[in-house]
Amino acid sequence: MDKNIPYKTYLNENEIPTKWYNLRADMKNKPAPLLNPGTLQPMTAEELSGVFCSELVKQELDNDTKYFDIPEEIQNFYKMYRPSPLVRAYCLEKALDTPAHIYYKFEGNNTSGSHKLNSAIAQAYYAKKQGLKGVTTETGAGQWGTALSMACSYFGLECKVYMVKVSYEQKPFRREVMRTYGASVTPSPSDTTNVGRKILAEHPGTTGSLGCAISEAVEVATTSEGYRYVLGSVLNQVVLHQSIIGLESKIAFDKIGVKPDVIIGCAGGGSNLGGLIAPFMGEKLRGEADYRIVAVEPASCPSFTRGKFAYDFCDTGMVCPLAKMYTLGSGFIPSPNHAGGLRYHGMSSILSQLYHDKLMEAVSVEQTAVFDAATQFARVEGILPAPESSHAIRVAIDEALKCKETGEEKNIFFGLTGTGYFDMVAYQKYNDGEMTDYIPTDDDLAVGFAGLPKTDL
Amino acid sequence: MDKNIPYKTYLNENEIPTKWYNLRADMKNKPAPLLNPGTLQPMTAEELSGVFCSELVKQELDNDTKYFDIPEEIQNFYKMYRPSPLVRAYCLEKALDTPAHIYYKFEGNNTSGSHKLNSAIAQAYYAKKQGLKGVTTETGAGQWGTALSMACSYFGLECKVYMVKVSYEQKPFRREVMRTYGASVTPSPSDTTNVGRKILAEHPGTTGSLGCAISEAVEVATTSEGYRYVLGSVLNQVVLHQSIIGLESKIAFDKIGVKPDVIIGCAGGGSNLGGLIAPFMGEKLRGEADYRIVAVEPASCPSFTRGKFAYDFCDTGMVCPLAKMYTLGSGFIPSPNHAGGLRYHGMSSILSQLYHDKLMEAVSVEQTAVFDAATQFARVEGILPAPESSHAIRVAIDEALKCKETGEEKNIFFGLTGTGYFDMVAYQKYNDGEMTDYIPTDDDLAVGFAGLPKTDL
Repeated sequence: MDKNIPYKTYLNENEIPTKWYNLRADMKNKPAPLLNPGTLQPMTAEELSGVFCSELVKQELDNDTKYFDIPEEIQNFYKMYRPSPLVRAYCLEKALDTPAHIYYKFEGNNTSGSHKLNSAIAQAYYAKKQGLKGVTTETGAGQWGTALSMACSYFGLECKVYMVKVSYEQKPFRREVMRTYGASVTPSPSDTTNVGRKILAEHPGTTGSLGCAISEAVEVATTSEGYRYVLGSVLNQVVLHQSIIGLESKIAFDKIGVKPDVIIGCAGGGSNLGGLIAPFMGEKLRGEADYRIVAVEPASCPSFTRGKFAYDFCDTGMVCPLAKMYTLGSGFIPSPNHAGGLRYHGMSSILSQLYHDKLMEAVSVEQTAVFDAATQFARVEGILPAPESSHAIRVAIDEALKCKETGEEKNIFFGLTGTGYFDMVAYQKYNDGEMTDYIPTDDDLAVGFAGLPKTDL
Repeated sequence: MDKNIPYKTYLNENEIPTKWYNLRADMKNKPAPLLNPGTLQPMTAEELSGVFCSELVKQELDNDTKYFDIPEEIQNFYKMYRPSPLVRAYCLEKALDTPAHIYYKFEGNNTSGSHKLNSAIAQAYYAKKQGLKGVTTETGAGQWGTALSMACSYFGLECKVYMVKVSYEQKPFRREVMRTYGASVTPSPSDTTNVGRKILAEHPGTTGSLGCAISEAVEVATTSEGYRYVLGSVLNQVVLHQSIIGLESKIAFDKIGVKPDVIIGCAGGGSNLGGLIAPFMGEKLRGEADYRIVAVEPASCPSFTRGKFAYDFCDTGMVCPLAKMYTLGSGFIPSPNHAGGLRYHGMSSILSQLYHDKLMEAVSVEQTAVFDAATQFARVEGILPAPESSHAIRVAIDEALKCKETGEEKNIFFGLTGTGYFDMVAYQKYNDGEMTDYIPTDDDLAVGFAGLPKTDL
């Protein structure tokens, strides 16, 4: 152990950032605007206000303001579970016998079990401030739904969650956590919405997808009095709120006098990755520092590494605005054997633009290798990681093993987004040796691509 | 919010105590010794060494040494999940509209989900140091088994866990966490031991009890080469290791210049309560300070409030040493509707002696009231508490409401031992309005008392 670097570096409460950082302000090539699915013209603030809260629409559309003040009520909520620790993985380093120094920012020490709470509390706050009655949303693994339930309960808002059916069945306890926080939870697709009924009619046996669940949640929000829709990933506003992860990490690294060489984050819709890298990418964009930044995605849902950079629907029902992003097509649904999270077909427009501009790399990994890494990590570092987070662990371990070969003392930094306590069905499959991998064929992907909208943008 | 008192007070890593405090050294009336179940004479170190590791036997029998050094390897492991925060419950205070100041020490931020890891790592360390192959244990809710699995995996020891059958069935995910850490898990009573087969023959439909599971684990430990038995509660050594909770709390309180008036802890076998109160009770015993100390137990398993202070078997199979304690009799099994943890029939000898000497109080609470408190707490403080911990929350809330009536600004301090992520079956029952209470009748208790051994001690 390096005497100058503790196992865990915590900020004091008065060091927690009081502003979110808007990465877009430093991007030369801004992310492309959302388009109206009917007119294919950029969505106006007014149009977006039918779906999202007004303050959040402002944040969504603002590519220029560099910092947004975090309202005091949100700061206070953050203090209940933040700052999150920056951890030096001494035990993992020792187990790997690597000269590399491994660090991770652990966002799992709250009941939602992940970083999702950082944006949930912000979105609930603005909904409450606007005088709304409640919000609707979708959830996959359930982390986002749990986070939003907690946030709504805190502010006394109603919360209606559409949960991807396969997760609803595999993760019944998540449903109960949401109910304990007062939310209603419906498996998606359901017969409670027009779009759900349509999807069920066309694909009777479907286990659901985030895209379906989004469509249902949006329909309910836009047809119910006093409701708006909120989303836990992909959107610019979410990356803004999640910048708290990277900002805290940066302050902690400065405290211990360390500069990361490689920054690794798992990527589904991009909420964690975008937040984790924000201030580091900002330095890179401004030419103040350089970092190697790596997005890790599942081989079974490879939007960065095998997707197209194109305008696409954010949901299966095509009721949402179109976003320009790396996408597998809104009709893409990962193979049913996929247990590892990160199931979304697209990717944050911000991250997509940065990747397109070659400011970051992306790799895909198979799920049994991910669970190998998860188990190895759990046994030495004590934390049972979420499958999502374990994608980043896999690549961090691979990087550390490369350093062992080369003798390099690199500083490897990854985002440990959450815990796997509600993912024990997947772990059981792995423990029983029954986990399998599936890499989609080009033909599989062609199905999703065929559904891409025809635009010239 | 009081500007001088943060939401969470963390110690720096170099402030984590490096010695455990042995409360017995300050007790005028020492806890009674363990007795050999055959001879009814005090167990010698040699006799105990057949069951427990030698260093742990020393700790178990030492009533005089005030501090024990924490070995560096254990200190390093502690740094992976400690210090735990001392939290000011600002949001709960606000929700209750009480002038009281509420604090809690949160021990749930580790994968075992509770304070149990504090002793598990110590016991695994001494087993490894003695060159053992593995250890056996029992687990109820699974927190202890998970903690021990983590500790054994860290030191490369085998770990055989006997899990109370009702918990094994209600908490399948706990089993998978233990397996992920490499442990073997057997539902108890099982047909893998003589005592298990005997209990199954006598009570074919039994859902098990901690007492049964202990008997099985002890049998396997004492009949397998290179194995010893370890226990997560009740024993003096466990209270010693758990003193880290109270010691850290005391340092944190001193940091913020606060002295608690009331200290509240849930009590099953006494591992948390003993550790939480240790340094405070020490001050009280030495006449340096006074505190009101309250043990909280379930009305369905009321060893302090309705038990007898007598020598009793620690296990159902009567293979373990006898301990003098408040007990309901080793044959007592809580009503099947009891979902709230803290199911053990007896109580730590140390705590029993302190209670007998009127140095602390005890109250019992019913489980629906406990889940009311748990849900109220979760919704404002964000943490979903374990049912066990929620017993302390119930009484802390009640005390805060009394302060509301009297206008007193008391400092109320309780131990939040863990999280309820693996207790969602119980929460579901509560959410569905199907949770019931059961207070044992005097006739129910008479059955357990009838099995108390006849000793004159």
